[in-house]
Amino acid sequence: MDPRVREHAEMLVDWSARIEAGDRVVVSVGEGCHDLAVAVAAVLGEHGATPAFTYSSAEVERAYLLAHDGAFADPAHRLAMNEAADAVLALRGGRNTAEGSDVPGEVRAAHSRANEAVREARMATDWVSTVHPTRSLAQQAGMSYEAYREFAYDAILRDWEALAEEMARLSALLDGGETVRIVTDDTDLRLSISGRTAVNSAASVAYGSHNLPSGEVFTAPVEDSVEGEVVFDLPRTYDGRTIRDARLRFEAGEVVDFTAAEGEDVLAEVLDTDGGARHLGELGVGMNRGIDRVTGDLLFDEKMAGTVHLALGRAYADCLPEGESGNRSAVHLDLLVDVRGTSRLEVDGEVVQRGGVFRWEDGFET
Amino acid sequence: MDPRVREHAEMLVDWSARIEAGDRVVVSVGEGCHDLAVAVAAVLGEHGATPAFTYSSAEVERAYLLAHDGAFADPAHRLAMNEAADAVLALRGGRNTAEGSDVPGEVRAAHSRANEAVREARMATDWVSTVHPTRSLAQQAGMSYEAYREFAYDAILRDWEALAEEMARLSALLDGGETVRIVTDDTDLRLSISGRTAVNSAASVAYGSHNLPSGEVFTAPVEDSVEGEVVFDLPRTYDGRTIRDARLRFEAGEVVDFTAAEGEDVLAEVLDTDGGARHLGELGVGMNRGIDRVTGDLLFDEKMAGTVHLALGRAYADCLPEGESGNRSAVHLDLLVDVRGTSRLEVDGEVVQRGGVFRWEDGFET
Repeated sequence: MDPRVREHAEMLVDWSARIEAGDRVVVSVGEGCHDLAVAVAAVLGEHGATPAFTYSSAEVERAYLLAHDGAFADPAHRLAMNEAADAVLALRGGRNTAEGSDVPGEVRAAHSRANEAVREARMATDWVSTVHPTRSLAQQAGMSYEAYREFAYDAILRDWEALAEEMARLSALLDGGETVRIVTDDTDLRLSISGRTAVNSAASVAYGSHNLPSGEVFTAPVEDSVEGEVVFDLPRTYDGRTIRDARLRFEAGEVVDFTAAEGEDVLAEVLDTDGGARHLGELGVGMNRGIDRVTGDLLFDEKMAGTVHLALGRAYADCLPEGESGNRSAVHLDLLVDVRGTSRLEVDGEVVQRGGVFRWEDGFET
Repeated sequence: MDPRVREHAEMLVDWSARIEAGDRVVVSVGEGCHDLAVAVAAVLGEHGATPAFTYSSAEVERAYLLAHDGAFADPAHRLAMNEAADAVLALRGGRNTAEGSDVPGEVRAAHSRANEAVREARMATDWVSTVHPTRSLAQQAGMSYEAYREFAYDAILRDWEALAEEMARLSALLDGGETVRIVTDDTDLRLSISGRTAVNSAASVAYGSHNLPSGEVFTAPVEDSVEGEVVFDLPRTYDGRTIRDARLRFEAGEVVDFTAAEGEDVLAEVLDTDGGARHLGELGVGMNRGIDRVTGDLLFDEKMAGTVHLALGRAYADCLPEGESGNRSAVHLDLLVDVRGTSRLEVDGEVVQRGGVFRWEDGFET
């Protein structure tokens, strides 16, 4: 077995989920993730944790959903398991990213609604989502299997402690800041983050982060504060469909105009979901330098150094003051801006990042 | 996909487990059982049942057990899931039947003890254990993969209703009978079944049967009634080790002498487990004519037409009168006698089967 599989398992169990003796852990094993499951089992055994392994397969789910009449019952047995769990480790992988493409959206939505309590129970645990590099994900990224594994482990097996320290610089600036401005060749967007809290997402539940890899700092814009225009020049795959070069114009926080070179219909669908879908719920800054390209998997893409992302829809509770609900919506669509070219990110009028380089890095031009 | 995989799934869900709309079903997916899991998912979807898929892998279990210090905690999350389930479908398969061979017996036993409540919760559901033919099981059987699949589906895809009717003849004889005698060239064993109930194991929970395939009639001998000598001339694989040509002599129900051409040490270990291990807990008669050879997998072997099996150890509650515990033991070791040669099976002195042929079949010589 590739020794990095074992290192990945240790990173997941120790750094990310902080598993301790006696912890009851649900390990969701995706198709093609057997090797990582074996490594995770060994690490959990060493820690004296108690695992339950579940099987997550797009083929199995598709077969079930296509055969069902759509009136889904409560999954009380899955709920009971997740409610009794201290942590949930989701090992994502898969053998065909398009496997769910012929499941009707309304069936998927009905099933998703029936599973809401299960999702909430999972979110109440120390859950972590990670990816085991599979051939299917390599294909989606347009990479050879070997090159994709290099890519994935470069992103996952980082010095998270050092990155957390660097990210703390940005999160401190955002926490203390009032306004943010993002400028590129065709973007000029201003928004308020007054009173909002930035999350230092360092791939560990100890940092309020539930993704491995992670490596982003994110906060929640004040709902009605967003003004200006933004072009999302990095492609986004959403529900198997691609959105390319989306251009959005905001007035008083709301999207008042939009176009896209590809997937404009998808974008329109999302914007029409509900009122919150036309407002931003997240501003995130990717800081993982192990990620050097967009691969079509958001878990990696939104963490990529030299990118900034904004999400239409739901805000994360961790970014909001006690008692405030922030922007609410059934959707959360992240879209990415490449800031590696001519660009600047300003906080309260001061340039924090220029051309993807932070002001504390060598090469930053003041 | 081989159309028999779909037929297998239908047989499992409809005939065996009797799944109905709203049932909460745990589907345990063994290594290599993905295709059967997909087919079962579709059938469960058609029925409006609610599945939870778990992953059962000998490699994952081995990694966990070898890494653990042996002081296992309660698996409360797995218990909660099984307690909330109406049925458990175990899809057994695997890629290496010897995968657990280097896990120390005491670690396995400690883990098994920690999982006793989970096992009991499963047994309280409409559980069914079945086998998806894998290359590893073909190898264990000494067969090509194609020939093994033919073999497995011949055993599984039977006219169970017709077999249940035939088996009812034998179970009625055993229910009404007082004594059984088994005679072969080197076996002459007498035992009492007075007051005991025979189970017509027709591969369905509706018949008190939890195996697919099944096809046996079994009952529980009266503990102290067994007298005589028996030679188990069909090989038995137990915990990865083979017992061959075991010869046991019984007096007043107890094993007083034993030898084996191979695995005598294994047999000795089993007999030394506890007092009940030296007494018989089961007499079973295989009646599945789709099974024409021993393959090293008891699920099939003990159902083979032309065999009789006796188990050292624990009796099944279904065979006992209300309030009687029958033979109690931590073990239950089935051992097989080939009755296809010179043999007879007598109930109350009347020959019921001769040379593996029942008296209601053509070719039976009175």
